[in-house]
Amino acid sequence: MSQAVKKPLTTLQKSINKNVTVRLKNDVEYHGRMNNIDPYMNVILADASEYTSGNVVANFGKIVIRGNNVLFVKIDDTL
Amino acid sequence: MSQAVKKPLTTLQKSINKNVTVRLKNDVEYHGRMNNIDPYMNVILADASEYTSGNVVANFGKIVIRGNNVLFVKIDDTL
Amino acid sequence: MSQAVKKPLTTLQKSINKNVTVRLKNDVEYHGRMNNIDPYMNVILADASEYTSGNVVANFGKIVIRGNNVLFVKIDDTL
Amino acid sequence: MSQAVKKPLTTLQKSINKNVTVRLKNDVEYHGRMNNIDPYMNVILADASEYTSGNVVANFGKIVIRGNNVLFVKIDDTL
Amino acid sequence: MSQAVKKPLTTLQKSINKNVTVRLKNDVEYHGRMNNIDPYMNVILADASEYTSGNVVANFGKIVIRGNNVLFVKIDDTL
Amino acid sequence: MSQAVKKPLTTLQKSINKNVTVRLKNDVEYHGRMNNIDPYMNVILADASEYTSGNVVANFGKIVIRGNNVLFVKIDDTL
Amino acid sequence: MSQAVKKPLTTLQKSINKNVTVRLKNDVEYHGRMNNIDPYMNVILADASEYTSGNVVANFGKIVIRGNNVLFVKIDDTL
Repeated sequence: MSQAVKKPLTTLQKSINKNVTVRLKNDVEYHGRMNNIDPYMNVILADASEYTSGNVVANFGKIVIRGNNVLFVKIDDTL
Repeated sequence: MSQAVKKPLTTLQKSINKNVTVRLKNDVEYHGRMNNIDPYMNVILADASEYTSGNVVANFGKIVIRGNNVLFVKIDDTL
Repeated sequence: MSQAVKKPLTTLQKSINKNVTVRLKNDVEYHGRMNNIDPYMNVILADASEYTSGNVVANFGKIVIRGNNVLFVKIDDTL
Repeated sequence: MSQAVKKPLTTLQKSINKNVTVRLKNDVEYHGRMNNIDPYMNVILADASEYTSGNVVANFGKIVIRGNNVLFVKIDDTL
Repeated sequence: MSQAVKKPLTTLQKSINKNVTVRLKNDVEYHGRMNNIDPYMNVILADASEYTSGNVVANFGKIVIRGNNVLFVKIDDTL
Repeated sequence: MSQAVKKPLTTLQKSINKNVTVRLKNDVEYHGRMNNIDPYMNVILADASEYTSGNVVANFGKIVIRGNNVLFVKIDDTL
Repeated sequence: MSQAVKKPLTTLQKSINKNVTVRLKNDVEYHGRMNNIDPYMNVILADASEYTSGNVVANFGKIVIRGNNVLFVKIDDTL
């Protein structure tokens, strides 16, 4: 992993195509492959699973989450 | 499906006339044909059904949803 | 109805003088003739009825709704 | 009353010195003479009465309401 | 009092050094001398009393209230 | 104390290094020395104590509070 | 530590690579090494632990928190 200091939005851009977990403000989580993300944190997830209280409650082929709902994005560093 | 990496808003634009499910922050969902969408995620749905807790509760010929209410847009890739 | 693809705000502009139902974030609905609407979705309704839980609870000759409260605008296509 | 189509903010500007009812997001209502209003919907009410659940609970000589709290402005067309 | 029509923010500017009551969105009220106010409605109150449910619960020599919390400013016209 | 009328943000700038109490929208309060503040009301507090319901619940060497959470800043005029 | 007065965002920038605690509006806290932060307070935490009510409930290799959720950032001055 690079030792260089990257800005948060740059880090997210460099994580495209990694698996991520996106937690929203309503505490629901989405796990999937991050196809893309923009500076507002609008994010495309492919092959996404929706989790509430740790359980999968739905699966989605492709969703676009509106960025203002995002609490955090967890990046899986193990490609 | 294209292998090219598209930005979230571009992906939504390219999905015009597909069927989508729009989930709002209040957990109500709208399923219909996405006639158009703008960068704020204001979205026009035609022949839309409204779902609460998985049940259809209303049908609308045409609605324009204000973008700031959107949690996510799920795209049906099977045209 | 036009087959052309119109942007959400254009669709709303073209619906001026149609009857619409405006649902707000607080789940109250207003039905009336849409005299005008601007890009922020500030909307003028004339001869408006206010509905809560499907019942008319008030009538207004003319109200101007502040756009940020709008959940969606349903357009009555039958002029 | 003019048949011309006016924008929402223009309609509010043309209603200065009319009696209005301003309903806020917290469901409290203020009835009074609208001395002035700006495009953000900051509004000055003179000789205003405050209503909760339809009852007058306070009277104010002059208040300036911050626009972002406004749900709608009802215009009394009978000058 | 002037008969001229003043904009809401101008009216507030012209009320500097008057006594005012500032009600916030959380229903707490602050009464004091308005030392200054800016267009965002950030407001300085001197010799301020804090009221909840009509009772004084605290006194402050000088506070600066962040404008986005303001519901309304009531102006005491009797200098 | 100066008799000149200062803008709210100027008053806050001139109060750097004074002791202040910052109340947040969630009703928690922070008392400490205000090292700095910017126009968005992002504020640095040093040697800060956190209060809930009037009791100290934590102490912090240095915290940076995000401005949009601020309800008000109370300035201790007694240097 | 520098005696110079630094702006809040500058202070955060100068704290990159320090350990911090980030408390969010939902009262959940994240402790970890702050890899980077931008002016919106979007923040990258590495080797982060999530705390609710003072207990560790999860560990994350790397998360990017969206800035608008931040209540405050506590800086550990002991490098």
